[in-house]
Amino acid sequence: MTKQKATNITWHEHTVSLADREALLKQKGVLLWFTGLSASGKSTVANEVTYRLHQEEKLTYVLDGDNIRHGLNKNLGFSPEDREENIRRISEVGKLFADAGVITTTAFISPYRKDRDNARKLLGDGRFIEIFVKASIDTCEQRDPKGLYKKAKNGEIKEFTGISAPYEEPLNPEIILDADTMTIDQEVRIVLDYLEEKKII
Amino acid sequence: MTKQKATNITWHEHTVSLADREALLKQKGVLLWFTGLSASGKSTVANEVTYRLHQEEKLTYVLDGDNIRHGLNKNLGFSPEDREENIRRISEVGKLFADAGVITTTAFISPYRKDRDNARKLLGDGRFIEIFVKASIDTCEQRDPKGLYKKAKNGEIKEFTGISAPYEEPLNPEIILDADTMTIDQEVRIVLDYLEEKKII
Repeated sequence: MTKQKATNITWHEHTVSLADREALLKQKGVLLWFTGLSASGKSTVANEVTYRLHQEEKLTYVLDGDNIRHGLNKNLGFSPEDREENIRRISEVGKLFADAGVITTTAFISPYRKDRDNARKLLGDGRFIEIFVKASIDTCEQRDPKGLYKKAKNGEIKEFTGISAPYEEPLNPEIILDADTMTIDQEVRIVLDYLEEKKII
Repeated sequence: MTKQKATNITWHEHTVSLADREALLKQKGVLLWFTGLSASGKSTVANEVTYRLHQEEKLTYVLDGDNIRHGLNKNLGFSPEDREENIRRISEVGKLFADAGVITTTAFISPYRKDRDNARKLLGDGRFIEIFVKASIDTCEQRDPKGLYKKAKNGEIKEFTGISAPYEEPLNPEIILDADTMTIDQEVRIVLDYLEEKKII
Protein backbone atom coordinates (compact mmCIF):
# COMPACT_ATOMS: atom_id res chain seq x y z
CA MET A 1 0.00 0.00 0.00
CA THR A 2 2.64 2.52 1.05
CA LYS A 3 4.58 1.98 -2.12
CA GLN A 4 1.51 2.51 -4.28
CA LYS A 5 0.52 5.69 -2.55
CA ALA A 6 4.03 6.98 -3.03
CA THR A 7 3.64 6.24 -6.74
CA ASN A 8 0.62 8.47 -6.82
CA ILE A 9 2.28 11.26 -4.90
CA THR A 10 5.49 11.36 -6.90
CA TRP A 11 3.71 10.85 -10.22
CA HIS A 12 4.87 13.26 -12.89
CA GLU A 13 1.68 14.44 -14.52
CA HIS A 14 1.64 14.31 -18.30
CA THR A 15 -0.63 16.56 -20.26
CA VAL A 16 -1.35 17.03 -23.95
CA SER A 17 -0.94 20.61 -25.14
CA LEU A 18 -2.65 22.52 -27.91
CA ALA A 19 0.62 22.39 -29.86
CA ASP A 20 0.58 18.59 -29.53
CA ARG A 21 -2.97 18.38 -30.84
CA GLU A 22 -2.22 20.77 -33.69
CA ALA A 23 0.77 18.67 -34.71
CA LEU A 24 -1.44 15.56 -34.72
CA LEU A 25 -4.18 17.24 -36.76
CA LYS A 26 -1.85 19.21 -39.05
CA GLN A 27 -3.92 22.34 -38.61
CA LYS A 28 -4.39 25.22 -36.22
CA GLY A 29 -7.29 25.46 -33.79
CA VAL A 30 -9.31 28.58 -34.64
CA LEU A 31 -12.79 30.00 -34.32
CA LEU A 32 -14.34 31.22 -37.58
CA TRP A 33 -17.06 33.56 -36.42
CA PHE A 34 -19.62 34.16 -39.17
CA THR A 35 -21.85 37.16 -38.51
CA GLY A 36 -24.58 38.76 -40.60
CA LEU A 37 -28.32 39.23 -41.05
CA SER A 38 -30.82 36.41 -41.09
CA ALA A 39 -30.82 34.86 -44.60
CA SER A 40 -27.44 36.41 -45.45
CA GLY A 41 -26.14 32.88 -46.01
CA LYS A 42 -23.95 32.50 -42.91
CA SER A 43 -24.84 28.88 -42.20
CA THR A 44 -24.65 27.80 -45.82
CA VAL A 45 -21.17 29.25 -46.26
CA ALA A 46 -20.01 27.96 -42.85
CA ASN A 47 -21.23 24.46 -43.67
CA GLU A 48 -19.66 24.51 -47.12
CA VAL A 49 -16.33 25.70 -45.70
CA THR A 50 -16.32 22.81 -43.22
CA TYR A 51 -17.28 20.38 -45.98
CA ARG A 52 -14.38 21.46 -48.21
CA LEU A 53 -11.99 21.37 -45.26
CA HIS A 54 -13.13 17.87 -44.34
CA GLN A 55 -12.37 16.76 -47.91
CA GLU A 56 -8.82 17.95 -47.24
CA GLU A 57 -8.78 15.83 -44.07
CA LYS A 58 -9.10 18.76 -41.70
CA LEU A 59 -11.15 18.40 -38.53
CA THR A 60 -13.99 20.90 -38.32
CA TYR A 61 -17.04 21.49 -36.18
CA VAL A 62 -20.02 23.81 -36.58
CA LEU A 63 -21.64 25.46 -33.57
CA ASP A 64 -25.09 26.63 -34.63
CA GLY A 65 -28.64 27.09 -33.43
CA ASP A 66 -29.41 23.40 -33.80
CA ASN A 67 -26.77 22.10 -31.43
CA ILE A 68 -26.54 25.10 -29.08
CA ARG A 69 -30.01 26.52 -28.58
CA HIS A 70 -31.55 23.12 -27.84
CA GLY A 71 -28.68 21.99 -25.65
CA LEU A 72 -26.22 24.15 -23.72
CA ASN A 73 -28.34 27.29 -24.09
CA LYS A 74 -31.81 25.84 -23.75
CA ASN A 75 -32.28 27.66 -20.45
CA LEU A 76 -31.84 31.04 -22.15
CA GLY A 77 -34.57 33.18 -23.67
CA PHE A 78 -34.44 36.33 -25.76
CA SER A 79 -34.10 39.09 -23.16
CA PRO A 80 -31.09 41.37 -23.64
CA GLU A 81 -29.25 39.61 -20.76
CA ASP A 82 -30.04 36.18 -22.14
CA ARG A 83 -28.92 37.15 -25.64
CA GLU A 84 -25.63 38.38 -24.20
CA GLU A 85 -25.20 35.18 -22.16
CA ASN A 86 -26.05 33.15 -25.29
CA ILE A 87 -23.16 34.70 -27.20
CA ARG A 88 -20.85 34.53 -24.16
CA ARG A 89 -21.36 30.78 -23.79
CA ILE A 90 -20.91 30.22 -27.52
CA SER A 91 -17.66 32.19 -27.31
CA GLU A 92 -16.43 30.12 -24.35
CA VAL A 93 -17.32 26.84 -26.05
CA GLY A 94 -15.66 28.08 -29.25
CA LYS A 95 -12.55 28.80 -27.21
CA LEU A 96 -12.53 25.24 -25.85
CA PHE A 97 -12.94 23.82 -29.35
CA ALA A 98 -10.15 25.99 -30.76
CA ASP A 99 -8.02 24.86 -27.80
CA ALA A 100 -8.77 21.28 -28.81
CA GLY A 101 -7.23 22.05 -32.22
CA VAL A 102 -10.50 22.03 -34.14
CA ILE A 103 -11.29 24.48 -36.95
CA THR A 104 -14.56 25.64 -35.43
CA THR A 105 -17.24 27.73 -37.08
CA THR A 106 -20.12 29.61 -35.50
CA ALA A 107 -23.06 30.86 -37.54
CA PHE A 108 -25.15 33.21 -35.41
CA ILE A 109 -26.49 36.65 -36.31
CA SER A 110 -24.55 38.05 -33.31
CA PRO A 111 -25.67 41.62 -34.03
CA TYR A 112 -23.72 43.42 -31.28
CA ARG A 113 -20.15 44.57 -31.75
CA LYS A 114 -19.49 44.34 -28.02
CA ASP A 115 -20.38 40.65 -27.88
CA ARG A 116 -18.21 39.81 -30.88
CA ASP A 117 -15.35 41.88 -29.49
CA ASN A 118 -15.60 39.94 -26.23
CA ALA A 119 -15.27 36.71 -28.19
CA ARG A 120 -12.21 38.17 -29.93
CA LYS A 121 -10.61 39.10 -26.61
CA LEU A 122 -11.35 35.67 -25.20
CA LEU A 123 -9.76 33.78 -28.10
CA GLY A 124 -6.98 36.25 -28.85
CA ASP A 125 -5.80 37.50 -32.20
CA GLY A 126 -4.96 34.80 -34.70
CA ARG A 127 -7.44 32.38 -33.10
CA PHE A 128 -10.56 34.48 -33.71
CA ILE A 129 -11.47 35.14 -37.32
CA GLU A 130 -14.48 37.37 -37.82
CA ILE A 131 -16.25 36.80 -41.12
CA PHE A 132 -18.86 39.37 -42.05
CA VAL A 133 -21.40 37.96 -44.47
CA LYS A 134 -22.55 41.26 -45.87
CA ALA A 135 -25.97 41.14 -47.49
CA SER A 136 -28.34 44.04 -48.01
CA ILE A 137 -31.75 43.91 -46.37
CA ASP A 138 -33.15 43.73 -49.93
CA THR A 139 -31.23 40.55 -50.70
CA CYS A 140 -32.25 38.97 -47.39
CA GLU A 141 -35.90 39.94 -47.84
CA GLN A 142 -35.96 38.47 -51.33
CA ARG A 143 -34.52 35.17 -50.07
CA ASP A 144 -36.38 35.01 -46.73
CA PRO A 145 -36.60 31.19 -46.77
CA LYS A 146 -38.63 31.04 -43.56
CA GLY A 147 -40.80 34.09 -44.19
CA LEU A 148 -39.29 35.83 -41.17
CA TYR A 149 -38.80 39.24 -42.78
CA LYS A 150 -42.43 39.28 -43.83
CA LYS A 151 -43.53 38.45 -40.29
CA ALA A 152 -41.18 41.05 -38.83
CA LYS A 153 -42.59 43.74 -41.13
CA ASN A 154 -46.13 42.73 -40.15
CA GLY A 155 -45.10 43.09 -36.51
CA GLU A 156 -45.60 39.37 -35.88
CA ILE A 157 -41.95 39.10 -34.74
CA LYS A 158 -40.67 41.77 -32.38
CA GLU A 159 -37.08 43.00 -32.37
CA PHE A 160 -36.05 41.37 -35.60
CA THR A 161 -32.47 42.23 -36.56
CA GLY A 162 -32.30 44.57 -39.53
CA ILE A 163 -36.01 45.47 -39.34
CA SER A 164 -36.85 46.41 -35.77
CA ALA A 165 -33.56 45.74 -33.99
CA PRO A 166 -30.07 46.97 -34.89
CA TYR A 167 -27.28 45.07 -36.61
CA GLU A 168 -23.90 46.58 -35.82
CA GLU A 169 -21.59 45.89 -38.75
CA PRO A 170 -18.07 44.69 -37.89
CA LEU A 171 -15.52 47.53 -38.09
CA ASN A 172 -12.42 45.42 -38.73
CA PRO A 173 -13.43 41.89 -39.63
CA GLU A 174 -10.74 39.57 -40.94
CA ILE A 175 -12.95 38.73 -43.93
CA ILE A 176 -15.90 40.42 -45.65
CA LEU A 177 -18.04 38.33 -48.00
CA ASP A 178 -20.26 40.35 -50.30
CA ALA A 179 -23.35 38.15 -50.39
CA ASP A 180 -25.17 40.54 -52.74
CA THR A 181 -22.81 39.84 -55.62
CA MET A 182 -20.81 36.71 -54.83
CA THR A 183 -21.74 33.09 -55.38
CA ILE A 184 -21.34 30.69 -52.49
CA ASP A 185 -18.39 29.13 -54.27
CA GLN A 186 -16.67 32.48 -54.43
CA GLU A 187 -17.34 33.16 -50.76
CA VAL A 188 -16.01 29.76 -49.73
CA ARG A 189 -12.88 30.25 -51.84
CA ILE A 190 -12.10 33.51 -50.05
CA VAL A 191 -12.32 31.85 -46.64
CA LEU A 192 -10.18 28.87 -47.68
CA ASP A 193 -7.56 31.17 -49.23
CA TYR A 194 -7.41 33.11 -45.99
CA LEU A 195 -6.86 29.94 -43.96
CA GLU A 196 -4.05 28.86 -46.28
CA GLU A 197 -2.43 32.29 -46.26
CA LYS A 198 -2.43 32.33 -42.45
CA LYS A 199 -1.08 28.77 -42.36
CA ILE A 200 -4.11 27.55 -40.42
CA ILE A 201 -4.38 24.69 -42.89
CA MET B 1 -27.78 39.19 -60.00
CA THR B 2 -30.75 36.91 -60.61
CA LYS B 3 -28.52 34.01 -61.55
CA GLN B 4 -26.45 34.35 -58.39
CA LYS B 5 -29.46 34.47 -56.12
CA ALA B 6 -30.82 31.37 -57.80
CA THR B 7 -27.49 29.69 -57.03
CA ASN B 8 -28.01 30.45 -53.37
CA ILE B 9 -31.60 29.27 -53.33
CA THR B 10 -31.04 25.99 -55.14
CA TRP B 11 -27.80 25.28 -53.28
CA HIS B 12 -27.60 21.74 -51.98
CA GLU B 13 -26.25 22.13 -48.48
CA HIS B 14 -23.35 19.87 -47.59
CA THR B 15 -22.69 18.97 -44.01
CA VAL B 16 -20.04 16.88 -42.27
CA SER B 17 -21.47 14.17 -40.04
CA LEU B 18 -20.13 12.56 -36.88
CA ALA B 19 -19.47 9.41 -38.91
CA ASP B 20 -17.37 11.48 -41.34
CA ARG B 21 -15.32 12.93 -38.51
CA GLU B 22 -14.88 9.54 -36.85
CA ALA B 23 -13.64 8.08 -40.14
CA LEU B 24 -11.13 10.92 -40.43
CA LEU B 25 -9.91 10.52 -36.84
CA LYS B 26 -10.04 6.72 -36.79
CA GLN B 27 -11.74 6.74 -33.40
CA LYS B 28 -15.16 7.16 -31.85
CA GLY B 29 -16.33 10.33 -30.15
CA VAL B 30 -17.08 9.55 -26.52
CA LEU B 31 -17.26 11.19 -23.12
CA LEU B 32 -15.16 9.52 -20.41
CA TRP B 33 -16.75 10.78 -17.21
CA PHE B 34 -14.37 10.36 -14.27
CA THR B 35 -16.11 10.72 -10.90
CA GLY B 36 -14.81 10.31 -7.36
CA LEU B 37 -13.76 12.09 -4.19
CA SER B 38 -11.32 14.98 -4.09
CA ALA B 39 -7.77 13.53 -4.17
CA SER B 40 -8.99 10.17 -5.51
CA GLY B 41 -6.75 10.74 -8.53
CA LYS B 42 -9.43 11.51 -11.17
CA SER B 43 -7.48 14.25 -12.94
CA THR B 44 -4.19 12.38 -12.83
CA VAL B 45 -5.69 9.27 -14.41
CA ALA B 46 -7.73 11.30 -16.93
CA ASN B 47 -4.64 13.23 -17.99
CA GLU B 48 -2.55 10.08 -18.26
CA VAL B 49 -5.23 8.36 -20.35
CA THR B 50 -5.28 11.29 -22.77
CA TYR B 51 -1.48 11.32 -22.89
CA ARG B 52 -1.28 7.64 -23.81
CA LEU B 53 -4.05 8.04 -26.38
CA HIS B 54 -2.26 10.99 -27.93
CA GLN B 55 0.84 8.85 -28.31
CA GLU B 56 -1.34 6.50 -30.36
CA GLU B 57 -2.39 9.48 -32.50
CA LYS B 58 -5.85 9.74 -31.02
CA LEU B 59 -7.44 13.15 -30.52
CA THR B 60 -8.36 13.85 -26.91
CA TYR B 61 -9.49 16.77 -24.83
CA VAL B 62 -9.83 17.22 -21.07
CA LEU B 63 -12.64 19.30 -19.58
CA ASP B 64 -11.65 20.19 -16.04
CA GLY B 65 -11.86 22.89 -13.41
CA ASP B 66 -9.10 24.92 -15.03
CA ASN B 67 -10.77 25.41 -18.39
CA ILE B 68 -14.43 25.29 -17.30
CA ARG B 69 -14.75 27.05 -13.95
CA HIS B 70 -12.78 30.10 -15.13
CA GLY B 71 -14.49 30.22 -18.50
CA LEU B 72 -17.91 28.89 -19.44
CA ASN B 73 -19.01 28.45 -15.83
CA LYS B 74 -17.40 31.50 -14.26
CA ASN B 75 -20.85 32.98 -13.58
CA LEU B 76 -21.81 30.01 -11.37
CA GLY B 77 -21.27 29.70 -7.63
CA PHE B 78 -21.69 26.81 -5.25
CA SER B 79 -25.42 26.89 -4.45
CA PRO B 80 -27.28 23.63 -5.14
CA GLU B 81 -28.82 25.13 -8.31
CA ASP B 82 -25.46 26.42 -9.51
CA ARG B 83 -23.78 23.07 -8.86
CA GLU B 84 -26.46 21.37 -10.90
CA GLU B 85 -26.13 23.91 -13.72
CA ASN B 86 -22.34 23.47 -13.58
CA ILE B 87 -22.64 19.75 -14.27
CA ARG B 88 -25.40 20.30 -16.85
CA ARG B 89 -23.24 22.66 -18.90
CA ILE B 90 -20.25 20.32 -18.65
CA SER B 91 -22.48 17.49 -19.90
CA GLU B 92 -23.73 19.57 -22.83
CA VAL B 93 -20.23 20.65 -23.79
CA GLY B 94 -19.06 17.05 -23.45
CA LYS B 95 -21.84 16.05 -25.83
CA LEU B 96 -20.68 18.61 -28.39
CA PHE B 97 -17.09 17.36 -28.10
CA ALA B 98 -18.13 13.73 -28.47
CA ASP B 99 -20.20 14.80 -31.48
CA ALA B 100 -17.06 16.37 -32.92
CA GLY B 101 -15.42 12.93 -32.72
CA VAL B 102 -13.10 13.75 -29.84
CA ILE B 103 -12.31 11.30 -27.02
CA THR B 104 -13.27 13.70 -24.27
CA THR B 105 -12.61 13.32 -20.57
CA THR B 106 -14.16 15.16 -17.64
CA ALA B 107 -12.64 15.10 -14.18
CA PHE B 108 -15.09 16.55 -11.69
CA ILE B 109 -16.18 15.16 -8.32
CA SER B 110 -19.80 15.18 -9.63
CA PRO B 111 -21.16 13.67 -6.39
CA TYR B 112 -24.82 13.32 -7.40
CA ARG B 113 -26.15 10.28 -9.20
CA LYS B 114 -28.94 12.32 -10.77
CA ASP B 115 -26.55 14.74 -12.44
CA ARG B 116 -24.39 11.94 -13.83
CA ASP B 117 -27.46 10.04 -15.01
CA ASN B 118 -28.61 13.16 -16.84
CA ALA B 119 -25.27 13.29 -18.61
CA ARG B 120 -25.68 9.63 -19.54
CA LYS B 121 -29.16 10.27 -20.97
CA LEU B 122 -27.90 13.26 -22.92
CA LEU B 123 -25.03 11.38 -24.55
CA GLY B 124 -26.72 8.02 -24.91
CA ASP B 125 -25.30 4.62 -24.14
CA GLY B 126 -22.05 3.83 -25.84
CA ARG B 127 -21.06 7.49 -25.91
CA PHE B 128 -21.06 8.03 -22.14
CA ILE B 129 -18.55 6.03 -20.15
CA GLU B 130 -18.74 6.50 -16.39
CA ILE B 131 -15.47 5.80 -14.63
CA PHE B 132 -15.66 5.60 -10.85
CA VAL B 133 -12.31 6.32 -9.25
CA LYS B 134 -13.00 4.58 -5.98
CA ALA B 135 -10.79 5.71 -3.12
CA SER B 136 -11.55 5.49 0.56
CA ILE B 137 -11.75 8.65 2.61
CA ASP B 138 -8.62 7.40 4.42
CA THR B 139 -6.62 7.26 1.19
CA CYS B 140 -7.84 10.70 0.13
CA GLU B 141 -7.11 12.21 3.55
CA GLN B 142 -3.60 10.80 3.52
CA ARG B 143 -2.91 12.27 0.10
CA ASP B 144 -4.76 15.57 0.55
CA PRO B 145 -2.33 17.53 -1.66
CA LYS B 146 -4.09 20.85 -1.07
CA GLY B 147 -4.90 20.31 2.61
CA LEU B 148 -8.62 20.43 1.83
CA TYR B 149 -9.65 17.50 4.02
CA LYS B 150 -7.91 19.07 6.97
CA LYS B 151 -9.73 22.34 6.39
CA ALA B 152 -13.06 20.53 5.92
CA LYS B 153 -12.61 18.69 9.21
CA ASN B 154 -11.77 21.97 10.97
CA GLY B 155 -14.95 23.43 9.53
CA GLU B 156 -13.02 25.92 7.40
CA ILE B 157 -14.67 24.50 4.26
CA LYS B 158 -18.42 23.89 4.39
CA GLU B 159 -20.17 21.09 2.50
CA PHE B 160 -17.03 19.23 1.51
CA THR B 161 -17.81 16.02 -0.36
CA GLY B 162 -17.10 12.93 1.74
CA ILE B 163 -16.79 14.90 4.97
CA SER B 164 -19.80 17.18 5.33
CA ALA B 165 -21.59 16.57 2.02
CA PRO B 166 -22.61 13.28 0.41
CA TYR B 167 -20.92 11.40 -2.41
CA GLU B 168 -23.35 9.09 -4.17
CA GLU B 169 -21.37 6.18 -5.59
CA PRO B 170 -22.23 5.12 -9.15
CA LEU B 171 -24.49 2.07 -9.23
CA ASN B 172 -23.54 0.76 -12.67
CA PRO B 173 -20.45 2.55 -13.91
CA GLU B 174 -18.78 1.19 -17.01
CA ILE B 175 -15.46 1.09 -15.17
CA ILE B 176 -14.41 1.02 -11.51
CA LEU B 177 -10.82 1.88 -10.65
CA ASP B 178 -9.76 0.84 -7.14
CA ALA B 179 -7.51 3.73 -6.23
CA ASP B 180 -6.74 2.25 -2.79
CA THR B 181 -4.82 -0.65 -4.26
CA MET B 182 -4.00 0.10 -7.88
CA THR B 183 -1.12 2.09 -9.31
CA ILE B 184 -1.90 4.80 -11.83
CA ASP B 185 -0.40 2.63 -14.56
CA GLN B 186 -2.83 -0.15 -13.70
CA GLU B 187 -5.79 2.23 -13.69
CA VAL B 188 -4.80 3.70 -17.06
CA ARG B 189 -4.39 0.23 -18.56
CA ILE B 190 -7.94 -0.73 -17.53
CA VAL B 191 -9.37 2.33 -19.26
CA LEU B 192 -7.33 1.80 -22.43
CA ASP B 193 -8.31 -1.90 -22.55
CA TYR B 194 -11.97 -0.91 -22.27
CA LEU B 195 -11.65 1.56 -25.16
CA GLU B 196 -10.03 -1.09 -27.32
CA GLU B 197 -12.59 -3.72 -26.40
CA LYS B 198 -15.44 -1.37 -27.32
CA LYS B 199 -13.68 -0.42 -30.56
CA ILE B 200 -13.55 3.23 -29.56
CA ILE B 201 -9.89 3.25 -30.52
